[in-house]
Amino acid sequence: MHVGFIGLGAMGSAMAAQLVAAGHQVHVWNRSPEPVAELAKQGALPADGIAEVLRCDVVVSMLANDAAVESLLLDEDVLAAATTQLHVNMATVSPALARRAARLHDRHGIGYVAAPVLGRPEAAAAGNLTILAAGPEALLDRATPLFEAMGRLTHRLGEQPQLANVAKVSANFMLFSAVEAFAEAAALAEASGLAPADLLEVLTSSIFPGPVYSGYGSMIATGRYEPAAFKLTLGLKDVNLALETAAEANVPLPLGSLLRDTLLEGIAHGDADRDVAAGIGETARRHANLPIRQH
Amino acid sequence: MHVGFIGLGAMGSAMAAQLVAAGHQVHVWNRSPEPVAELAKQGALPADGIAEVLRCDVVVSMLANDAAVESLLLDEDVLAAATTQLHVNMATVSPALARRAARLHDRHGIGYVAAPVLGRPEAAAAGNLTILAAGPEALLDRATPLFEAMGRLTHRLGEQPQLANVAKVSANFMLFSAVEAFAEAAALAEASGLAPADLLEVLTSSIFPGPVYSGYGSMIATGRYEPAAFKLTLGLKDVNLALETAAEANVPLPLGSLLRDTLLEGIAHGDADRDVAAGIGETARRHANLPIRQH
Amino acid sequence: MHVGFIGLGAMGSAMAAQLVAAGHQVHVWNRSPEPVAELAKQGALPADGIAEVLRCDVVVSMLANDAAVESLLLDEDVLAAATTQLHVNMATVSPALARRAARLHDRHGIGYVAAPVLGRPEAAAAGNLTILAAGPEALLDRATPLFEAMGRLTHRLGEQPQLANVAKVSANFMLFSAVEAFAEAAALAEASGLAPADLLEVLTSSIFPGPVYSGYGSMIATGRYEPAAFKLTLGLKDVNLALETAAEANVPLPLGSLLRDTLLEGIAHGDADRDVAAGIGETARRHANLPIRQH
Amino acid sequence: MHVGFIGLGAMGSAMAAQLVAAGHQVHVWNRSPEPVAELAKQGALPADGIAEVLRCDVVVSMLANDAAVESLLLDEDVLAAATTQLHVNMATVSPALARRAARLHDRHGIGYVAAPVLGRPEAAAAGNLTILAAGPEALLDRATPLFEAMGRLTHRLGEQPQLANVAKVSANFMLFSAVEAFAEAAALAEASGLAPADLLEVLTSSIFPGPVYSGYGSMIATGRYEPAAFKLTLGLKDVNLALETAAEANVPLPLGSLLRDTLLEGIAHGDADRDVAAGIGETARRHANLPIRQH
Repeated sequence: MHVGFIGLGAMGSAMAAQLVAAGHQVHVWNRSPEPVAELAKQGALPADGIAEVLRCDVVVSMLANDAAVESLLLDEDVLAAATTQLHVNMATVSPALARRAARLHDRHGIGYVAAPVLGRPEAAAAGNLTILAAGPEALLDRATPLFEAMGRLTHRLGEQPQLANVAKVSANFMLFSAVEAFAEAAALAEASGLAPADLLEVLTSSIFPGPVYSGYGSMIATGRYEPAAFKLTLGLKDVNLALETAAEANVPLPLGSLLRDTLLEGIAHGDADRDVAAGIGETARRHANLPIRQH
Repeated sequence: MHVGFIGLGAMGSAMAAQLVAAGHQVHVWNRSPEPVAELAKQGALPADGIAEVLRCDVVVSMLANDAAVESLLLDEDVLAAATTQLHVNMATVSPALARRAARLHDRHGIGYVAAPVLGRPEAAAAGNLTILAAGPEALLDRATPLFEAMGRLTHRLGEQPQLANVAKVSANFMLFSAVEAFAEAAALAEASGLAPADLLEVLTSSIFPGPVYSGYGSMIATGRYEPAAFKLTLGLKDVNLALETAAEANVPLPLGSLLRDTLLEGIAHGDADRDVAAGIGETARRHANLPIRQH
Repeated sequence: MHVGFIGLGAMGSAMAAQLVAAGHQVHVWNRSPEPVAELAKQGALPADGIAEVLRCDVVVSMLANDAAVESLLLDEDVLAAATTQLHVNMATVSPALARRAARLHDRHGIGYVAAPVLGRPEAAAAGNLTILAAGPEALLDRATPLFEAMGRLTHRLGEQPQLANVAKVSANFMLFSAVEAFAEAAALAEASGLAPADLLEVLTSSIFPGPVYSGYGSMIATGRYEPAAFKLTLGLKDVNLALETAAEANVPLPLGSLLRDTLLEGIAHGDADRDVAAGIGETARRHANLPIRQH
Repeated sequence: MHVGFIGLGAMGSAMAAQLVAAGHQVHVWNRSPEPVAELAKQGALPADGIAEVLRCDVVVSMLANDAAVESLLLDEDVLAAATTQLHVNMATVSPALARRAARLHDRHGIGYVAAPVLGRPEAAAAGNLTILAAGPEALLDRATPLFEAMGRLTHRLGEQPQLANVAKVSANFMLFSAVEAFAEAAALAEASGLAPADLLEVLTSSIFPGPVYSGYGSMIATGRYEPAAFKLTLGLKDVNLALETAAEANVPLPLGSLLRDTLLEGIAHGDADRDVAAGIGETARRHANLPIRQH
């Protein structure tokens, strides 16, 4: 299949590489040129601009946020000139943007599917992502070979694209909530004489298996937050997405509000570029006046 | 080994039965007589009173709360008359009580070990509990054959008994936090058009495996909270234990405060005797004005 | 003075009328024509459009929110054509907008002053507003005759216009916080057998005099929220302004987060157009399962 | 009237002095002897012990907390020996204790009235307290000459003594809530460039007159918390009273939960003996990483 790929950050580059490896012809574009050159070595085809990418059969995009999608792809002129049949937006964007994008693509006769993913760059590099897909069945079928190249499991969540974004936003909200819970429990444990690592060992070997507790939990238990797996500012972006999505539906989200306050406090204390676990973990420690583990 | 067992609720009965099945001579006592008669059929030896139980080599207790332990076992006269060498307290009690109990037992020359458990009655009936044990090494060694009969895994958490209670209190705090997170996410999802069951399927097959999300999560996703696995009032007891333990160490626990408010709201709306997941799940729904799933 | 006035809602109309009464020549404009006609009867001069208003010596605006100011007045073409020397923006807008507006006006050689007010339409109609003013001293001096016509007291808060908006946003945040505190206290009192009106009488005659407790407090104590003095949706707008202003400065605002959740719950339960006190007061009652006082 | 007075802290001493000044014969007792000697100089009669005090016509008590009342006055033997006709408990204790005390006094034929006060030692010294009284009408009438000597205004809140305690607990909850609101607003203001003192001036001269905002607010605006008017640990005691009173009636109190977390954080950072405004004000500053004003 002729595939266009827009947005070659850590995630996008790894995903595009999987498409190339699976034998697709992949035309790639990125705002900065370095990742394009890198992928070209692996067999991808550098595109001159977005317009060229939008002439491929299917276009996959993995941009940073709503604003990037809005400015690069939700432009009437850009879409009018596009000849692609399907745009698969795999980024973490708001359900509201997905609704707007679906309507706009529809007006231009282009299919639109939302397919955000769960998993970090390592999982993307191994084709091991979990893909949350939503959109018209026929379009999801069309994208399936691409999903199979990039992920280990695809969930179909309905005909309306934004439902996949709702699922993704909810999943990230739960991820941060789990980190907050462990951060508070670790502070409680340490201040009461129990090593957070002992508590974590108890939890992960019993009622809380899985990568969130072992991964972020271990960062907090040890105070080693490098390398950052999920930058705090991106975490705040996602918490705000959850709060805004909830607000649109008049749903109070008290745990989301708590997370937002916690992450703002982390930024105030210099953790903006550290892992989100640092912002959450050290904030709980600061509240209890436990020693802060510095950068 | 001659083992005494005090407290035959759903958990205690199943645990005592495992000890009998493992070949120990188990003298059992309970405030109400029915569970004693039931266990006698399985080979346990009914005791006339607590004094008789406290003459066994090792005594295991599984009482409802701090007050029950305090009134039945932390009495100077009762302990002065006891000839047992070791008391293994497996109930969920406060670290503060564990400290007091250890001192008091020590004064009477009786060993004291804290060994609260993770797992529900089904796990207890299958000898599948996770045991969180703390106390002097030699005493833990002494209790090991009993732990092996009742659990699949024992964590040793230090020489000070109360550390096991800190771990247990923290684990339950995290359990309720996870339920709160899913309750909010499920309300957000449903109000945004995504079925909570679809969200749960995504989560449990990816970043949140394990019994908490699948068990309590499924109750919330379906609105079927029967049979109650963990009664709301017991949940509130445990959240209060976490808050008090944290307060003793001057640790703020904002998620614990949120849980307390949520559970009080559940009780105000008639959920005291339902599963804790009902109190948490329906409260999130009420906040968002989603239909309440009645008793 | 030739004064232009833009935005004739309940507040704006009353304020413009005070300017007319003080002997100023007031050219008025509003999106909908009715209030213009009404004010003309009192001696104001209807303007054909914004352009005409922007030719007066001083222009006062009292628009609904950031978006209205942005679209009507922060347009390069509009400002390029304006010959006024001073724009006094008295609306409750964000400090961020004030900064942007000040820069933009400056580029077009127009003075910009922020002067949001405390007080309701009744106070405006009596010339009794409290005015929070910020901007260059000379410009504040210039606006002083207008402030004296509209208010009983003007606070000068510095040379940077946005500081007045910071003060206004903070004041409204405190107003809603006081209402939340009384709503919770009233629920606690009523559920404990004490009439909220008795509690309110104690408070207002001792440590909490002033219009906020007596006004909103009395609405909550009696359950009579009509007529709405401050619509819930406007309250939510203001709480969001506080949260956003705080977030820009990396300031967590836990009470602001709580208010946002409370107001969303109020909207979910149909209180969007009622007084903000209804949303806050009835939400506290619903949490405690006290009878809801319906519309 | 022969009056007995038990509990001569800063408040109690000032109140007893007012009774002496009004011409009553006042027999005073206190755990430590110094305040007794001090009051004797002003004309009070030192009592040998509680038993002697409890033979006066009316006994007023102003003890530190529930535990002190419980141990000194709610003893069956002590009450059996008492010949007084009326006990007026003016301390801030829990409504639950008031209910228990009323029942117990009734069994011994002694009248019981709850009459907690609003106001600080200065107000007590000037006979300027606000008195919140509840109990049987005839008993309140009996105590009225004493109330008139000590306070400027007495509110009668019903026949059940604990209602006065509900009012007092609610009032203190509102006091701390107001301090929290200003602490957050002051952090928001300062981080946005507006001096907290300017914000406070705006507020106290408009919508928030009264002693709470000017008193505690000024402490926070200036960072000068000496002398402590209300010690943090006493504030935490009162917040816990509010939370427990609310919990008994199944009333969630989210602002109360927030206050409890804030005060615990203050204690963790060494503010236990400073004014409650220091704990609340500096915690808000720490969250925003504003400079902490040290001891």
